[in-house]
Amino acid sequence: LYILISHMVLPPSQVYNVFVLCAFRLYLLYNHWALKVLLYFFILVNLSLAIFEEPALVSLPTWATMLVELLCLLVFTIRLVHYAKVIPREKFWKDPKNICIIVLTLMDMIIYGGLKAANLYGVRWSRVLRPLLLINVTEGRQLRRAFRSIRNALPEVSSVFVLFIFSVLMFSLMALKLLSKRDLKTIEGASYFTNYLEIVFDLYVLVTTANSPDIMMPAYNANSMFALFFILYILVNTYIFMSVFLAVVFNNYKKHLKEEIRQLVRAKRHKMARAFGVLQEQREEGGPPVVSHENWSKLVQQARPDISNAHRELLWRVCDDGNQDFIGKVAFVQLADLLNIEVITLKSRPHPLQSLIPSFYESKPSRLLCRVVQHRGFVITFDLIILVNAVFIGLDEENPLISNSEWAFLALYVLEILLKLYVFEPRAFFSKHSFWNWFDTIVVIAALIATIVNSALKSSGGYTSRQVLDIVFILRVFRLIRVVDSIKRFRAIINTLIRIGPAILTFGQLILVVYYVFAMVGMELFKNKVKFYEDINNPEKAYCGNPLLKGSTFAQLSYCKNNFNNVVSSFILLLELTVVNQWHDILYTVNHFTHKSALIFFVLFHVMVVIIIINIFVAFVLEAFFVEYSVGKGDLQTSLERKIEELELAVAQEKLEDNLVNAMETIDNDLGSGQSPTANLPSLLFKVASKRYRTVDALLQRMFEADLDPEDFAENDIPEDQAGNFENPTFGVA
Amino acid sequence: LYILISHMVLPPSQVYNVFVLCAFRLYLLYNHWALKVLLYFFILVNLSLAIFEEPALVSLPTWATMLVELLCLLVFTIRLVHYAKVIPREKFWKDPKNICIIVLTLMDMIIYGGLKAANLYGVRWSRVLRPLLLINVTEGRQLRRAFRSIRNALPEVSSVFVLFIFSVLMFSLMALKLLSKRDLKTIEGASYFTNYLEIVFDLYVLVTTANSPDIMMPAYNANSMFALFFILYILVNTYIFMSVFLAVVFNNYKKHLKEEIRQLVRAKRHKMARAFGVLQEQREEGGPPVVSHENWSKLVQQARPDISNAHRELLWRVCDDGNQDFIGKVAFVQLADLLNIEVITLKSRPHPLQSLIPSFYESKPSRLLCRVVQHRGFVITFDLIILVNAVFIGLDEENPLISNSEWAFLALYVLEILLKLYVFEPRAFFSKHSFWNWFDTIVVIAALIATIVNSALKSSGGYTSRQVLDIVFILRVFRLIRVVDSIKRFRAIINTLIRIGPAILTFGQLILVVYYVFAMVGMELFKNKVKFYEDINNPEKAYCGNPLLKGSTFAQLSYCKNNFNNVVSSFILLLELTVVNQWHDILYTVNHFTHKSALIFFVLFHVMVVIIIINIFVAFVLEAFFVEYSVGKGDLQTSLERKIEELELAVAQEKLEDNLVNAMETIDNDLGSGQSPTANLPSLLFKVASKRYRTVDALLQRMFEADLDPEDFAENDIPEDQAGNFENPTFGVA
Repeated sequence: LYILISHMVLPPSQVYNVFVLCAFRLYLLYNHWALKVLLYFFILVNLSLAIFEEPALVSLPTWATMLVELLCLLVFTIRLVHYAKVIPREKFWKDPKNICIIVLTLMDMIIYGGLKAANLYGVRWSRVLRPLLLINVTEGRQLRRAFRSIRNALPEVSSVFVLFIFSVLMFSLMALKLLSKRDLKTIEGASYFTNYLEIVFDLYVLVTTANSPDIMMPAYNANSMFALFFILYILVNTYIFMSVFLAVVFNNYKKHLKEEIRQLVRAKRHKMARAFGVLQEQREEGGPPVVSHENWSKLVQQARPDISNAHRELLWRVCDDGNQDFIGKVAFVQLADLLNIEVITLKSRPHPLQSLIPSFYESKPSRLLCRVVQHRGFVITFDLIILVNAVFIGLDEENPLISNSEWAFLALYVLEILLKLYVFEPRAFFSKHSFWNWFDTIVVIAALIATIVNSALKSSGGYTSRQVLDIVFILRVFRLIRVVDSIKRFRAIINTLIRIGPAILTFGQLILVVYYVFAMVGMELFKNKVKFYEDINNPEKAYCGNPLLKGSTFAQLSYCKNNFNNVVSSFILLLELTVVNQWHDILYTVNHFTHKSALIFFVLFHVMVVIIIINIFVAFVLEAFFVEYSVGKGDLQTSLERKIEELELAVAQEKLEDNLVNAMETIDNDLGSGQSPTANLPSLLFKVASKRYRTVDALLQRMFEADLDPEDFAENDIPEDQAGNFENPTFGVA
Repeated sequence: LYILISHMVLPPSQVYNVFVLCAFRLYLLYNHWALKVLLYFFILVNLSLAIFEEPALVSLPTWATMLVELLCLLVFTIRLVHYAKVIPREKFWKDPKNICIIVLTLMDMIIYGGLKAANLYGVRWSRVLRPLLLINVTEGRQLRRAFRSIRNALPEVSSVFVLFIFSVLMFSLMALKLLSKRDLKTIEGASYFTNYLEIVFDLYVLVTTANSPDIMMPAYNANSMFALFFILYILVNTYIFMSVFLAVVFNNYKKHLKEEIRQLVRAKRHKMARAFGVLQEQREEGGPPVVSHENWSKLVQQARPDISNAHRELLWRVCDDGNQDFIGKVAFVQLADLLNIEVITLKSRPHPLQSLIPSFYESKPSRLLCRVVQHRGFVITFDLIILVNAVFIGLDEENPLISNSEWAFLALYVLEILLKLYVFEPRAFFSKHSFWNWFDTIVVIAALIATIVNSALKSSGGYTSRQVLDIVFILRVFRLIRVVDSIKRFRAIINTLIRIGPAILTFGQLILVVYYVFAMVGMELFKNKVKFYEDINNPEKAYCGNPLLKGSTFAQLSYCKNNFNNVVSSFILLLELTVVNQWHDILYTVNHFTHKSALIFFVLFHVMVVIIIINIFVAFVLEAFFVEYSVGKGDLQTSLERKIEELELAVAQEKLEDNLVNAMETIDNDLGSGQSPTANLPSLLFKVASKRYRTVDALLQRMFEADLDPEDFAENDIPEDQAGNFENPTFGVA
């Protein structure tokens, strides 16, 4: 945004010539949403090639996948060239990662093609590089930041990790000395705790609690005192060390994130200060330079055309606190933050039916209906209906009474939505912030469609599609979730969870990148070691098609599908390894067929995903909840709210509650998008959506606001991320 | 301390009469360490009665245990009467918990005795109350605080828990609808996901990851798409909800702890202000009241007789910053905090050998020796020796070369300690803060004794005692831990861990109390359901002496010893349940023999221990590390250090490093307890042990110092804990 603003401002000043204007168009084109979507699409295509390449889920000839990959590379190259045109040359060459990826991939494709043509064995090693494009090429600022915080946390994490490994080694040595001479046997009859390296691995697995208490049982059965050893081990390594890992990761994550946000905010303010420099004029002789209302309005209009005039006027009033018709530097610089505060504009529109057939809508029975729907009892009634529905869903649907009752419930839900639409202004009911209204309507309509399709299929051919039925079932259960929203305590938790949703998506990408890399490597190393047979009668099913697995725990637990034979099963296997339980059994195969050094692959995965990424995830959720619990409103938010109140444009809360008898609260948790036709309010109202932020960056800035100095415009310390990255060209203004 | 001070001060003032003096003696007696130790001893005896009562580890007749318990009760009653004498009557009756416990226990004993005499079945239900004495009767302020924070966190935790259970129920319903009709089978051939309640239990277990991926495999083998359901489930319930639990527990814990500490500090300041009121005098006409140096010195001398005159003088200088020979109220009130800062007093004593045989000690070879021992190379050499030792320990000790090498290593370690004692002043070497010196010496001497005993036993009868050998092995491995101290990065982590050690002990007590209660209940409910047979040839061993368990996973994994047959195995079983893995297999017995409602016992245990207590533990470790990372020195500490420097009494760091060539750092991580005979320093030096606190309370106060106002003496808000508890009588002063 602020880049946009600073560039928006530039054309009026006379310093810049046609060349700049042309470059500016190129820049706008570069940031056009369609090109971005196209780029994401090709990255997705490139990533999903793994489904079709050997070892494949759906086999395609090599030339086909290669051709698609070439196309993707072409698109990335064009994007890169476009980028090179947009940013200064020296900045472009500072970050050659993307060029490297493209060149390396091309090289690999040529080598692999050559080897294939000569019928030699080749490895497509460049597939590991593909997910890096997701980090590097795209708008992945959040993702890059997450990776940077991992990189920054590494030194401290590794020093704790070395200490932790030292502790594991010491305990293993002690176990070797205490237990190896006692001739104990595991349940499989193997010798117990006699080989040092095996002890180390077993105890490492015990840290993840995956083989507890099995690993302890032989020693414990021999003598109760040995339990003490394992208790001490679990206390030290599982509880204390794992907490220390979380603490170190959390602390580093927070520290570096704070530093980055600080630099980002400084860079933003610095840019805003420069924009101020362009727009400024001298009102009084010798007075400080100011920006006039007119210029400011033009700027905001260009930067955020979606903002209503009234809203813009409101923001001006906040900036221009003294009603001087101009603002100083500090107030101007706030603008970007001010635009990030989500203000809900409420138009007190009459219900369309009221305008169409006022005599009917205003009649006594209609008014009574409105009052009934707005009553708390209405919500409670429907909550009860949902509960009854839940019981009916749980019962056997073969019973005709119960399968028919589904129609009754659907009718009730549709009725509920229609009633609400009758009472509340439809545009307000379906406003952007009414999550639960949207949720309700979509689920009910989808369920209605799916149920109709299902019964149509059934009555036409007596055939019931399993897929359609599954969707019907899922939608039915989804409907029940709505109960949660009626209970205030739950709503707060759910809202926090919904709010951190976008950030969780960042972690999703992070996990995707790491999984992809490990899946590619794993598929090369372990493909087709075990096989899964759909056919139950196949005798090879009992040992996963590998005679070495005869009688192993792996085969006994029918884990055959946990393999690296295609990209989907690899991902699921990696997820199982992330959950950690039974991972030693899953690794059984590796442990026994391939070189033991392959275990390094899995330990590396464990350290990377379980110790680092999961801990960062936990740290993020913790931090988000702490912010939720402890942070009040920001300074700017408060001044905005105060101004709204001063101007008497606030949604009068008491009035609303008075009129709507609490129903408001249950209709929309933001108190304000549903408008009662009876409320006698000004025609335009504002409400600050206090805990919503337009971007993740704004949320992060809010988290660390206490540590940021609002008067800090210093030029130095512009972070690298700002200075030289692909998707955020700083576009040589100076 | 501050109570002591305020009472110490009271006698000189003439308001109090002989009665008060007598009560004061009673109070001192009540707080006498011997009586406290006695009380703890009897609590321990009372708790350990569980070993001898049915179901017993070591059987004793019922009358014997009853007699011992009566004795314990008698002791507690005497203590309670003593307490009643010490505190005002109304305060005593405000907290009747202890009286209740004693009366209920007596009642239970009488009933049980009567039932036993009549040969009827009786349950000793009052055993559940025993651990409550540990919370209530003793000096368990930390423990009570931990319990209070659990109680305070309960409402919020339970609202998240209800939401979590709702989510589990919804997912279970979806699983029932999606999977029950597909005729899937588990590996045991049972029907899969057909019973709603079983699904709920299975999915609840999946949250703990204990049955992952087994529970998923049948569905996943049938269709890969079902893996999506489980992935979503694990993401929502295991990762997100468990993080939310941690966040809620952490947040509540911190909030309430902060509030308690705030109140405690206010109460302390208020008491100090009252003490000031007693001691104050008017120096100048109309000036503020002050306390003279003389009175202050008397007070400190009485309150802390262990403080040296020089140290006291130093503290006075800090308080009396303007050298006025009197201090005002604010400076006086700081005293308690000031006394809590640990100041290391260094006496630059010459080495005893230097005084005895100076000509020899000061000779050239002797000086060379000193320099060698102080050299960094000396430490590195011994680290290398330790590593070689580690390899030797790992090798087979049957080899005579290796078993004899042990003597060489022991000799080397003894030599190292003797050399260090030759070079460094022994009292400084064994000062209170030299953790590693103590650790080294004790381990080496113990290993020496154990090795001698072992070889004596061996040579005398050719018989090697397994126990002695085990101890020898453990001590050998312990010696290796020393390596950690040489590496600076590790030292910081280890020191933090050592520092939070006492607080971890509080959690130990907490766990003990909860485990004890659950063990007592569990023993009554599940005793002798499964049996463990030491004898391998006993045919009943295969099914744990219970025909119902034939062919069960429980018996196959030889989990027979995981039972509630005595208090020790109950504790170990509960620990296994805390670690969570395989708990569904451990519960197999319960699930199949007894009424299913017994599962409630285990779910309750899981919620209580895993969700709440373990999370509080993690929260505490996190907080301690955050404090370690982010908190600098406190204000008072800084002013104390500044004063030490002003008075040129500081341990001159450069000088030390100059002289001791870094050896200092490796000898004692507090830089200062080891004194070089060659250092030419003032005879008395001080150093603030910056991150050590005398009490857990002081550490907590430091944690939240930023939120406490130093000028806040308000009288109100004296916390209940201060006002009316057993071990901290406020002793009606007013």
